[in-house]
Amino acid sequence: MSAPLLATSTRIRRTPFSQRVDAAEPKSTTVYNHTPLVAVYRSLEEDYHHLKRAVQIWDVSCERQVELRGPDAARLIQMTTPRDLSAMGDDQCYYVPAVDAQGGLLNDPVAVRLAADRFWVSLADTDLLLYYKGLADALKLDVAVFEPDVSPLAIQGPKADDLAARIWGDEVRSLKFFRHMRADVGGTPMVLARSGWSKQGGFELYLDGAHNGPAIWDQLMEAGRDLDVHAGCPNLIERIEGGLLSFGGDIKIGETPYEAGLQRFMKSVSPTCLAAEALEKKSNPTKQIRPLSISGDAVPAVTEEWSLSLNGESVGEVRAAAWSPDFNTNVAIAMVGRDAWDAGTEVSVTTPSGTRTAKVEPGFWI
Amino acid sequence: MSAPLLATSTRIRRTPFSQRVDAAEPKSTTVYNHTPLVAVYRSLEEDYHHLKRAVQIWDVSCERQVELRGPDAARLIQMTTPRDLSAMGDDQCYYVPAVDAQGGLLNDPVAVRLAADRFWVSLADTDLLLYYKGLADALKLDVAVFEPDVSPLAIQGPKADDLAARIWGDEVRSLKFFRHMRADVGGTPMVLARSGWSKQGGFELYLDGAHNGPAIWDQLMEAGRDLDVHAGCPNLIERIEGGLLSFGGDIKIGETPYEAGLQRFMKSVSPTCLAAEALEKKSNPTKQIRPLSISGDAVPAVTEEWSLSLNGESVGEVRAAAWSPDFNTNVAIAMVGRDAWDAGTEVSVTTPSGTRTAKVEPGFWI
Repeated sequence: MSAPLLATSTRIRRTPFSQRVDAAEPKSTTVYNHTPLVAVYRSLEEDYHHLKRAVQIWDVSCERQVELRGPDAARLIQMTTPRDLSAMGDDQCYYVPAVDAQGGLLNDPVAVRLAADRFWVSLADTDLLLYYKGLADALKLDVAVFEPDVSPLAIQGPKADDLAARIWGDEVRSLKFFRHMRADVGGTPMVLARSGWSKQGGFELYLDGAHNGPAIWDQLMEAGRDLDVHAGCPNLIERIEGGLLSFGGDIKIGETPYEAGLQRFMKSVSPTCLAAEALEKKSNPTKQIRPLSISGDAVPAVTEEWSLSLNGESVGEVRAAAWSPDFNTNVAIAMVGRDAWDAGTEVSVTTPSGTRTAKVEPGFWI
Repeated sequence: MSAPLLATSTRIRRTPFSQRVDAAEPKSTTVYNHTPLVAVYRSLEEDYHHLKRAVQIWDVSCERQVELRGPDAARLIQMTTPRDLSAMGDDQCYYVPAVDAQGGLLNDPVAVRLAADRFWVSLADTDLLLYYKGLADALKLDVAVFEPDVSPLAIQGPKADDLAARIWGDEVRSLKFFRHMRADVGGTPMVLARSGWSKQGGFELYLDGAHNGPAIWDQLMEAGRDLDVHAGCPNLIERIEGGLLSFGGDIKIGETPYEAGLQRFMKSVSPTCLAAEALEKKSNPTKQIRPLSISGDAVPAVTEEWSLSLNGESVGEVRAAAWSPDFNTNVAIAMVGRDAWDAGTEVSVTTPSGTRTAKVEPGFWI
């Protein structure tokens, strides 16, 4: 039984970089925010080693943007996130877990503040645009809520600074994590942020205007030839090692930020957040995200959650797992109940290749 | 350059029928509402002929449900659609184009009324749940908005009545279009509606409780063996012939119901709809959905919109097209500007296999 091909249609949106991505011949692709996102180019392990050694260009246009613009923009975004945004600067990006009034997660986007009355919200895989619109329509807020023609392109890997410096100068090297600056593309100043969905360092360019896509892709590929630049994508192994959570996969809609292990962003919950009260009552979760190592040789792909048990009782589920060549074990992300979540706890996990033992780790691997 | 495989993960949800779908070995699959949806089983044309001749079982769990339950349920759904729901009965389904306060489409779901204070909304491919939540949270409405464990299974084709009657008795034959009744599955009465995304007739079973999935699939397959029942899926050719619009593909988010050609649902716009005023000003669109025939042999797959021109001026775009064996022409769905939308107008269309002539048709084919 072989996996089906990805069927395409105009419902699955092409991106400014799609032609270049096609030419790089990905092996497998998923759909994220109605947009293709490559999962594997050469092989999961080859992509992994390359990402940790060189530099990759990722078409992450699927991180669709919502623009909030107008006098009520800051109020609207703050209504949807517990994280206090009052000290956010015009050159900052914030990870802003987005919740409904009951405190259930709807998305875990990155907000880019462009001005006091203008934000881009870089989405994980749900149409958060619709929640913003619902609030704005109901309360008749003075804010425009729309999707701008902006498509992120990530430059990731230990040689990302070298590559970016060749295009935009050495100034990029001093850009701090989750800060952004302006970088010229085709004569237009665009947002370049130090961010990205890997732990290997790098940038995300918020490409403004789809027509500028192929030229900047080609320019990066040309400039990085001796750095072994290659088309890449978020890598399952590397992102589990680094504890980068996939919304909808590792965290489910309606789970709380506490369950998702995001308490470090909850230190001072903004009273403007609609969920402020509800979250206070949910700050002692009974399950929480944990890193897990799974014994034995390489596990198969997780296409459906694998249940965890302790002394015959169900205590949670594995939501992502992969063999890590660098750590010589299967690394995994699991939602684990309180009875089993302490580091060092050994549990059983039911995989398609049989029952294995697994251990709750004290932290992610990198 | 071959198409990539569909990459899976727990972010792409398994359905109650996924094991059965896998066993039927689909050739290609897309992702719809974070859920797999098969596009082709045997071949597009073989599936097409079979759908028009026999009966198919479709896993359309991707039509995710939103349940609206509580005293404000009817008010909430009416706020989001111009279609007047005041006369809707407890055994009815309504196609309810859903719009924001500016009149832009957010989804085009089917609403199933279960009681005066309880609806299921069967979604096209956007997270409309979030818009309902936004309105309900902002206005503190007395309504629960959530996704129930309900997964539609479609029975489609000219022999669908025969097959359904073997399971649920001859009563199903007299069920009228867009009406629903109760049908027993594993001892539980479930909603069975006369509906489905084909013009070949049939039903949609709203499977309540995922654990009931494999048994009813097997029961239908067993009972329909001599009717040549087969696993199936919405068929691109058949649905274009029938003018069944794909939200996100043929209609884009933010376009109006008038642009989408849905004026027949707009005869008496409910004043409760937040967009009532905005829509009044948009009732004379400058572009509208049209059926189009395209000359020449079979066109390639439309993965990106194809532009239309008339006397060198851009007049719209083709959003879906396929070769129709039964009508011996390429059938297409296009968004066409006012200058070219009259039936009989000949336009040029730029396809990956060259420029062709196309003609605006007076209506869809079936």
